[in-house]
Amino acid sequence: MKNKKAVFITIEGCEGCGKTTQSELLKKYLESKGLTVVLTREPGGSIVAEQVRNILLNPDFNVAPFCELMLYEASRAQHLEDVIKPNLQKGHVVICDRFTDSTLAYQGYARGIDKEVIKKLNNIATSGLKPDLTIYLDINPNKGIKKAKTVNKGNLTGGDRIERESLKFHNNVRKGFLELAKKYPDRIKKVKTSEIIEKTQKEINKEIDKFFKKKKIYV
Amino acid sequence: MKNKKAVFITIEGCEGCGKTTQSELLKKYLESKGLTVVLTREPGGSIVAEQVRNILLNPDFNVAPFCELMLYEASRAQHLEDVIKPNLQKGHVVICDRFTDSTLAYQGYARGIDKEVIKKLNNIATSGLKPDLTIYLDINPNKGIKKAKTVNKGNLTGGDRIERESLKFHNNVRKGFLELAKKYPDRIKKVKTSEIIEKTQKEINKEIDKFFKKKKIYV
Repeated sequence: MKNKKAVFITIEGCEGCGKTTQSELLKKYLESKGLTVVLTREPGGSIVAEQVRNILLNPDFNVAPFCELMLYEASRAQHLEDVIKPNLQKGHVVICDRFTDSTLAYQGYARGIDKEVIKKLNNIATSGLKPDLTIYLDINPNKGIKKAKTVNKGNLTGGDRIERESLKFHNNVRKGFLELAKKYPDRIKKVKTSEIIEKTQKEINKEIDKFFKKKKIYV
Repeated sequence: MKNKKAVFITIEGCEGCGKTTQSELLKKYLESKGLTVVLTREPGGSIVAEQVRNILLNPDFNVAPFCELMLYEASRAQHLEDVIKPNLQKGHVVICDRFTDSTLAYQGYARGIDKEVIKKLNNIATSGLKPDLTIYLDINPNKGIKKAKTVNKGNLTGGDRIERESLKFHNNVRKGFLELAKKYPDRIKKVKTSEIIEKTQKEINKEIDKFFKKKKIYV
């Protein structure tokens, strides 16, 4: 499915961990190394998948846990066909803001759905494609949620359907990410989110350089 | 999950087989026997599920096969929680226009997705709930498609995203339903769609009476 030169990077983390900002900075950094980089996000990332995203994040909807899970997987399957696969086939670097680990952390660890079921669905939706490298941005949800709500809605009572979940829910999400990072240390690199954007960026770039040098993509 | 008196009936078949008309007639027939009947449909049947239906049937969208499959299952999981389960718990008769057999026929037999994967997803979305009785309305797709398009859009070039599929696709859907009816003869009863609505209805009611008398729900 992939061109030899292609690299698939995912950025994961709780709400407010700085994924979006850092993904954009990472794109610029890798472009400065002469690489072609495509930045995309989940849920969404293509026309049909964005329609699914609208359902998923609408705070007025009461979505059943299995429905939520299947919608994330539907969006993923479409996004894979429309964006991720074609770009990896062209030998590009694809950076994806959230991917399969988020589904395990949110729907598995936090929502309580059987993780084996989620792994099966992840596998079906991705046709077995796994990220080459995952940057997990670690933040205390207590800080992250406040930041996410302030950034997105300008007040603390707002937020999308997921951001409105309880602090306990978000703590379980974090626990999930931490466990996944322990379980797959070769793929998932944990970076602590600092309040200083440049500091976080530096830590990410350290991991990125290590990976790309090992792969002999740049020295 | 179910009240003892509850009965879950699904109506299946190709486009234009008369499912909608016959489901409504069946509802009236069972009500005339003193039963409380809830008529619903897939994909859709609840607020969130209807949003998913809108994506699925939009002829302007190019939906990837796995995305399509997951969207049907998402819609099903939500519909089960919102409509099917609560009504079965109350001891009502639930008639559902399309259910899991449609996913096997359309996405499995016609679209070519691995049927074992679909069965797994059906099982997850329904938490293992199976219909007590399924009426499969058999029609030659050549006739059915013309009828569906005329009824829904008033012309032959229109139709929703599924109706616009090729005749070969719809023939494979029919083959799927016929195989399923052979495989599960106790649950799935095949009724040939006649051009005379009352004739089809009479055949359906024969099967219905057999089932309800056997269950001693009415004599």
